[in-house]
Amino acid sequence: MRVQPIEWHDGIVAILDQTQLPQRVVVDEYDDWRGVAEAIRVMKVRGAPAIGIAAAYGLALAARTINAPTMEAFRAEFDAVCRALAQTRPTAVNLFGAIERMQAIVAECQTPDEAQARLLAEAHAIREEDYAADRAIAEYGAALLPPNAHVLTICNTGALATGGIGTALGIIRVAHQQGKLAHVYACETRPRLQGLKLTAWELQQEGIPFEVIADSAAGTLMAQGKVDAVIAGADRIAANGDTANKIGTYTLAVLAHYHGVPFYIAAPVSTIDSRTLDGASIPIEYRDPAEITHIDGLQIAPTGAPALNPAFDITPAALISAIITERGVYRPPYDFSRLSFTLNRRPIG
Amino acid sequence: MRVQPIEWHDGIVAILDQTQLPQRVVVDEYDDWRGVAEAIRVMKVRGAPAIGIAAAYGLALAARTINAPTMEAFRAEFDAVCRALAQTRPTAVNLFGAIERMQAIVAECQTPDEAQARLLAEAHAIREEDYAADRAIAEYGAALLPPNAHVLTICNTGALATGGIGTALGIIRVAHQQGKLAHVYACETRPRLQGLKLTAWELQQEGIPFEVIADSAAGTLMAQGKVDAVIAGADRIAANGDTANKIGTYTLAVLAHYHGVPFYIAAPVSTIDSRTLDGASIPIEYRDPAEITHIDGLQIAPTGAPALNPAFDITPAALISAIITERGVYRPPYDFSRLSFTLNRRPIG
Repeated sequence: MRVQPIEWHDGIVAILDQTQLPQRVVVDEYDDWRGVAEAIRVMKVRGAPAIGIAAAYGLALAARTINAPTMEAFRAEFDAVCRALAQTRPTAVNLFGAIERMQAIVAECQTPDEAQARLLAEAHAIREEDYAADRAIAEYGAALLPPNAHVLTICNTGALATGGIGTALGIIRVAHQQGKLAHVYACETRPRLQGLKLTAWELQQEGIPFEVIADSAAGTLMAQGKVDAVIAGADRIAANGDTANKIGTYTLAVLAHYHGVPFYIAAPVSTIDSRTLDGASIPIEYRDPAEITHIDGLQIAPTGAPALNPAFDITPAALISAIITERGVYRPPYDFSRLSFTLNRRPIG
Repeated sequence: MRVQPIEWHDGIVAILDQTQLPQRVVVDEYDDWRGVAEAIRVMKVRGAPAIGIAAAYGLALAARTINAPTMEAFRAEFDAVCRALAQTRPTAVNLFGAIERMQAIVAECQTPDEAQARLLAEAHAIREEDYAADRAIAEYGAALLPPNAHVLTICNTGALATGGIGTALGIIRVAHQQGKLAHVYACETRPRLQGLKLTAWELQQEGIPFEVIADSAAGTLMAQGKVDAVIAGADRIAANGDTANKIGTYTLAVLAHYHGVPFYIAAPVSTIDSRTLDGASIPIEYRDPAEITHIDGLQIAPTGAPALNPAFDITPAALISAIITERGVYRPPYDFSRLSFTLNRRPIG
């Protein structure tokens, strides 16, 4: 079974509701871009590349429903949709990259009909490029692992998070197929437990040997020499290599540094934001404290207990042993300042 | 309201069931030591000092129900109860210290009646010594904090975990009373969420400003300069200062070291195990993986997902800025090898 977080069926965007996994497999179908925007906001679809793909399909959907007599009117309505979609999540740059690519398509079109067709083709292209990128990332990454590798990872960076086999989890998949993977330690990834729910689900389906751990157990495993490499995904990589990813990634990087364990970031080049100089300039999303105080709707904390809930943290480039992309493996010092923001976009006009 | 995790009422041991906090305040009453042993095992009572106190009262209870005609027969039955109680939890040394103190009392007694009376008095003494120790620890610890201190802590080390105001949380209480505490970051402390449930509950009742955080957020807070000190409790401190405490403590110590933040252990001397040379010799409890895969009875992980659940980790002495006890503040290099195992015990015979 190939997991498909987002699919397009003849004017419908179908999104696998990841907030219900692993207990229930529910697919929501949207014929209005507003539903797609809401699905991104509440994290029915999550993972930086998947967010980009969902946004692209959301815009393709919007293009079908915009009723504009002129291209100028179409562009005005389309840009309003883009602005609304850009409000859903602040950190993953793939969202903004996808929106820019779609806007560039609209800029080239002469008629709303042309725009409608070309926007859908572009959304498909974004997904297919991501699919191919994952394959290449996985091959490059697996080559970095030693035989009999014990790999620690965080959050979900698998097929659920991307258009393909995943980034960090794609590497784990391919290393497993190559027979060089011994064991995966999957950090459960509080507060939303994507490791416990989604990564465990994907690893189980693939028959890859793993154990879920509390996020706080990573240190003692490294101290015991049980971790050969840490591989994480990314929500945004700044020009200097500083990387925003799921809260806890930075702690893993410090632990890996302290224990001499390689720490890798795996991400498509669409996650690199050459226009953001460094990590300090990446906006960090703070989410509802209820994600801490409640778990799956169940109140755990005393009523009214305050919680602080940063969804991401910044890992400075100096702590990253390598950044693994579909273009190859980058080593420090990183300089992505000359990569164009939307790398795979065809030149405008 | 003074929180009382364990009370003795005329032949009854009353234990506040901490697995039901904060949603329900339930006190279980035991007239059989087996109930007390089970309460320790399933963590209705937890926290190293509180475990020691509960074990002592459990033995005082056992002494009342042993029906032995001779002192020799009494001792044989009493020792069997001691062995059973010693099986409940492996890491917290206070359990074994309390049992040894109670056995030393029995060794001095001439009749079962005398033993019964003196064992109860000894259990009271263990609790009262712990109460006094907490006060002294709190004064020593608060003196180490800077004005306007932002303190990060883990697990619950408060009144629920001890016979008094708590260890690390006792320091926080007194620092708050002294007006030098600005804010507490309480790590939620997966898997059992003692921070989210119990520490939040105690801090709320005292009106101490705090926020609960995911354990994985500690790193980014330190990187942002928001933490002035980390204070943790201990389940066992080896002769060389290596310290076993709640899983995640070691990760906090590495993070504190990396960021130049002081890392303190607060514990009564009854938590120091001078007969255990170093951390490698401390037995680490691995608990049921269901503590990871399920939260408050709710299944979160996919069915059958494996999890690894070490309940404690070892923080090496070199990462501990100071060990704060009721006898004062110890600084590295630590040498507790000449402390007697049960420090406050009167000489035998």
